[in-house]
Amino acid sequence: CEKVAVTVALGDGIGPEITRATLDILAAAGARIAPEYIDIGEKLYLSGHSSGIAPDAWESLRRNKVFLKGPVTTPAGDGYKSLNVTIRKTLGLYANVRPCVSYAPFVATLHPKLDIVIVRENEEDLYAGIEHRQSDEVFQCLKLISRPGCEKIVRYAFDYARSHGRKKVTCMVKDNIMKMTDGLFYKVFQEIAVEYPDIATERYIIDIGAARLATQPQRFDVIVTPNLYGDILSDIAAEMTGSVGLAPSANIGEQIAMFEAIHGSAPDIAGQGVANPSGLLLAAVMMLVHIGQAEVAARVHNAWLATLEEGIHTADLQGEQSQQVVSTAGFAEAVIARL
Amino acid sequence: CEKVAVTVALGDGIGPEITRATLDILAAAGARIAPEYIDIGEKLYLSGHSSGIAPDAWESLRRNKVFLKGPVTTPAGDGYKSLNVTIRKTLGLYANVRPCVSYAPFVATLHPKLDIVIVRENEEDLYAGIEHRQSDEVFQCLKLISRPGCEKIVRYAFDYARSHGRKKVTCMVKDNIMKMTDGLFYKVFQEIAVEYPDIATERYIIDIGAARLATQPQRFDVIVTPNLYGDILSDIAAEMTGSVGLAPSANIGEQIAMFEAIHGSAPDIAGQGVANPSGLLLAAVMMLVHIGQAEVAARVHNAWLATLEEGIHTADLQGEQSQQVVSTAGFAEAVIARL
Ligand SMILES: CC(C)[C@H](C(=O)O)[C@@H](O)C(=O)O
Ligand SMILES: CC(C)[C@H](C(=O)O)[C@@H](O)C(=O)O
Repeated sequence: CEKVAVTVALGDGIGPEITRATLDILAAAGARIAPEYIDIGEKLYLSGHSSGIAPDAWESLRRNKVFLKGPVTTPAGDGYKSLNVTIRKTLGLYANVRPCVSYAPFVATLHPKLDIVIVRENEEDLYAGIEHRQSDEVFQCLKLISRPGCEKIVRYAFDYARSHGRKKVTCMVKDNIMKMTDGLFYKVFQEIAVEYPDIATERYIIDIGAARLATQPQRFDVIVTPNLYGDILSDIAAEMTGSVGLAPSANIGEQIAMFEAIHGSAPDIAGQGVANPSGLLLAAVMMLVHIGQAEVAARVHNAWLATLEEGIHTADLQGEQSQQVVSTAGFAEAVIARL
Repeated sequence: CEKVAVTVALGDGIGPEITRATLDILAAAGARIAPEYIDIGEKLYLSGHSSGIAPDAWESLRRNKVFLKGPVTTPAGDGYKSLNVTIRKTLGLYANVRPCVSYAPFVATLHPKLDIVIVRENEEDLYAGIEHRQSDEVFQCLKLISRPGCEKIVRYAFDYARSHGRKKVTCMVKDNIMKMTDGLFYKVFQEIAVEYPDIATERYIIDIGAARLATQPQRFDVIVTPNLYGDILSDIAAEMTGSVGLAPSANIGEQIAMFEAIHGSAPDIAGQGVANPSGLLLAAVMMLVHIGQAEVAARVHNAWLATLEEGIHTADLQGEQSQQVVSTAGFAEAVIARL
């Protein structure tokens, strides 16, 4: 069986630890992938690449079309743009798919029935990166919403719901205030919804929608929403499952797909071997499905679940069972032992 | 004792019911206020006042400088602008102060220790209302952040913390992406914080900040944040106390102050006499303190609390005690009986 070339970046902070743990598990599970490493992030930023990435890395990404990415640190200061955003926009990764699932009682949570997928628009909105100084005292940032952008993400959400046996897609916008931009998003949602009579639909204004998500997440299934709201909602939902450290994400484009944890590089705990590799590991599971290795994906996912079910986890999580707190590497070993 | 003239709008939907219940309680408590009624909202929008308010209402507001406002409905359609936003901006109500408090076990909540105040910037951000069509397919909305705007709201938050015995002010922004606009907000926060060495400070990126709020609200005290984030965070926090229907707000300007519930006009349950007047009643309590009638305010607040503590509440709430579900008017009577 031939191996699939996958571009891999270890990233900054806890990135190298969790990426190595993830790759060890994938290798032991028999994933047919050939990692091609690229350097991105801090090192690049500070060596003159103001975008945090070098030309050969772009070539690798465009050649392999599949990217497993560790978290990166953007240095403070106006000169440095977020590499996450640069990659998403440059490669046209328009859909950011973020499943959030509770694993109670193995991971402690107030919301044991949480099982949702946030489909976040990933290129537009305030993330378009158009910000400027109007005068000494006034600054502006442009929120940009286009019809093609809305159509792509809304259609993706409905197709995802259908192909994953999900029953409802909820649209969250603030179209009572932003009648043109968020209004367009909701209008397109309504237009496309009629093509999916098998999927229920619903709309929330983002304020009360976020509030309902924070109190009754079991009411939601798939949520489709503009970029910034999706950023906020996905951290909320992930943290409610027990930790933001559990949630994976797939950044999907027409050609290229990138898989990463939704959490950041956590420099405060970097190098201590205590970080939770679960977010990136579950992202790798999504990647394996994406490249047609669904069986390996299931094997990894089940072993990961079995590990948690036996009360073995990293220090960030709390379980309701008798527990065994292990290091990043110890957790990887435990998963491997259960493959 | 002379009465203070207060402009009052009954509003739309459940507005008239909850405003009458509130005024009945204030009257029974001996509040020294003289309501001056204005018409705003649906009726005005549909009778040719595209802003939902007529010139004589503005005169009343400018004359009395204190406004108790029922919720209003903005008709759907591009032609109608939110009256809430118009009033806040026209009258310069720069601070939107939203206390959110849990009343467990009298109101059921997963978060019994929640006791925070969200100080939301109330005039700028995407709410500046500058939205336009760039082409047939592309729309833009301007996010506007000014130094004077940031200074006013941040100073208000610190002054509020100090005068209310609060210990910490948390700033929530997305300045890793919006380095100029949100960056300015946080820069001003840091500058002003040094003048308040007695108050602890903290910063969260809005995504993980909202997530922490949704899972560990007891970690927060006062939160200061730009307009849109404040809109979302305050609905989250209020709903987590048991219902968005419990939370009041004070919209504070240099000259004029407006007091309202944070919830909307709930047309689906309007006219049934089941709405919860608590949000508006607690806003009226804030108003009484504002006009120097703190004793009456305390009397009303205590009677309201005693009512809940005896398990008497409207249908929207759940308590953990033996309960008696009453109508809007029944709830007002119960509060009055406990004054
Ligand atoms: C790191 C940051 C740019 C990023 C975002 O805001 O999208 C992160 O919060 C995420 O959700 O992936
Ligand atoms: C009704 C709406 C314009 C308003 C807002 O977005 O500010 C409301 O949600 C609020 O929080 O007061």
